[in-house]
Amino acid sequence: MRVLITGAAGMIGRKLTQRLVERGRLLDERIDAVDLVDVVEAPADAAVCTAHTADLSRPGAAEALVSLRPDVVFHLAGVVSGEAEADFDKGMRVNVDGTRQLFDALRFAPGTARVVFTSSIAVFGAPFPDPIPDDFHPTPLTSYGTQKLIAEALLADYSRRGFLDGVGIRLPTISVRPGSPNAAASSFFSGIIREPLAGREAHLPVSRDVRHPHASPRAAVRFLVHAAEMDTARLGPRRNLTMPGVSVTVREQIEALGRVAGAAVTDLIREEADPAVAGIVAGWPQRFDTSRAASLGFEADRSYDDIIRAHIDDDLGSR
Amino acid sequence: MRVLITGAAGMIGRKLTQRLVERGRLLDERIDAVDLVDVVEAPADAAVCTAHTADLSRPGAAEALVSLRPDVVFHLAGVVSGEAEADFDKGMRVNVDGTRQLFDALRFAPGTARVVFTSSIAVFGAPFPDPIPDDFHPTPLTSYGTQKLIAEALLADYSRRGFLDGVGIRLPTISVRPGSPNAAASSFFSGIIREPLAGREAHLPVSRDVRHPHASPRAAVRFLVHAAEMDTARLGPRRNLTMPGVSVTVREQIEALGRVAGAAVTDLIREEADPAVAGIVAGWPQRFDTSRAASLGFEADRSYDDIIRAHIDDDLGSR
Repeated sequence: MRVLITGAAGMIGRKLTQRLVERGRLLDERIDAVDLVDVVEAPADAAVCTAHTADLSRPGAAEALVSLRPDVVFHLAGVVSGEAEADFDKGMRVNVDGTRQLFDALRFAPGTARVVFTSSIAVFGAPFPDPIPDDFHPTPLTSYGTQKLIAEALLADYSRRGFLDGVGIRLPTISVRPGSPNAAASSFFSGIIREPLAGREAHLPVSRDVRHPHASPRAAVRFLVHAAEMDTARLGPRRNLTMPGVSVTVREQIEALGRVAGAAVTDLIREEADPAVAGIVAGWPQRFDTSRAASLGFEADRSYDDIIRAHIDDDLGSR
Repeated sequence: MRVLITGAAGMIGRKLTQRLVERGRLLDERIDAVDLVDVVEAPADAAVCTAHTADLSRPGAAEALVSLRPDVVFHLAGVVSGEAEADFDKGMRVNVDGTRQLFDALRFAPGTARVVFTSSIAVFGAPFPDPIPDDFHPTPLTSYGTQKLIAEALLADYSRRGFLDGVGIRLPTISVRPGSPNAAASSFFSGIIREPLAGREAHLPVSRDVRHPHASPRAAVRFLVHAAEMDTARLGPRRNLTMPGVSVTVREQIEALGRVAGAAVTDLIREEADPAVAGIVAGWPQRFDTSRAASLGFEADRSYDDIIRAHIDDDLGSR
């Protein structure tokens, strides 16, 4: 069993690699090799791992990687939301053309690889019903969401034609994201938990009433592994699934932080209204009915308290 | 005012050209030029028309056409359903890459052209609710439907970014389609009307209970012109619209034929079950709730009787 991970140097890629190395098996087979692909070198600490530096959107790159004969491909690589909006051509080249080249390389390779593709709830755009049902139409309001939607459509058709065996998983916002605050409009969702836990101030740019779905990095990795192992016959031709998240308001996030870490920690959160961020966030989904994913065995975090505890366990050495 | 029509040699392209020449005006301006583009030469009978033979999916073709500086583009060109399924690469090249190259050429041209794109109800795939609401998710079951969906997503994002001003219209099955029966699974929907009216036998491969939405070529042309003239501010970012059709069963089609042309004509319809065709048709939509298009001023045919009368008037010289 050979596994290929694109975008392997990213946060989720690294956590997925670690999980696969720990498991040692996938689909009831021993994992003999994990090929880690990214534009920068991914950490390849385990003997089973090999890092490959490659830009999938360059001619020939996908074919070279697929010649490693992966049985399972986790396609996580992509230009993120802010960058795809700022640099339209780069987003199209990486998120659309790179994905299509990877899928085409797999199409012409022997066998039928399982492909797990990380899509995003950014394929949806307001206005929404509450909750958003599984059969609600995607109407992205960003180029990133558009590009993810196009990749989803390709994944489904390539699967229907037997070129590959795809599962697209639309991830909710990942929190608590370890590392530093970044320029993403969603950064504060993690920041208001991560920074106070580290003894630092965090800024809250939106109202405490803002509701949003979350998944821990641990849940995201669980979704990926489940998507690799599930019986895709149960999916039929509808290959793309909205993953279950924990839908909470910012107020509920902060209350959970108080329960897990003590009320004093929450005092480090400073309200600092930012109408630009609030405007962007207002167009985002608040709550999904993810019965379909649930019926197919995808399991959300149980509560936002658990999401915070997962961060403390996995990223802060349980302190 | 300069108009560009791609796929101009096709049935709808020719009827649209004729309509524009008759009107002489679009968006309250005089039409000075109608550029007709197709891989075969389109009939350019009126002085205002010029035929251009070009394959939009070839490098440079889109730029050359856009250098004609169209104010309104009707993008009808495409590989049809059966061909896109039989020749996957051709479908992707023409329906996806050709469309993207056209949109990119418009993006870099001065001004913001109105682009009317003909999508299809093939973006939808069973199972369906009845009726299918305007916000139901597209889950195509063909490569053609997938390619139309990708083009829709591009149209919406290019419009959102101001690269062009797009309206995507999802056409129901066009009947009564003039000409000869073809290999399309949907061919019989027109055949059972057109052939008996011409005194020829027609074969009915499915049950009379099969329900399907229809629009006359006349209604399709009306949709196209309305999409070119409508106020797109009313669309917001949701640029793709399911057009209103007349949803009837095959039995109701045949009853309408009897009313319009006499019961004797309907005796020319021979039931000849074809499980392959019946299987394909079973995956098709039956009925849409098209309130959104209706509220935006798109008008369906009033009845299937009217659809037959439009065929007699427009294609049979009113005989």
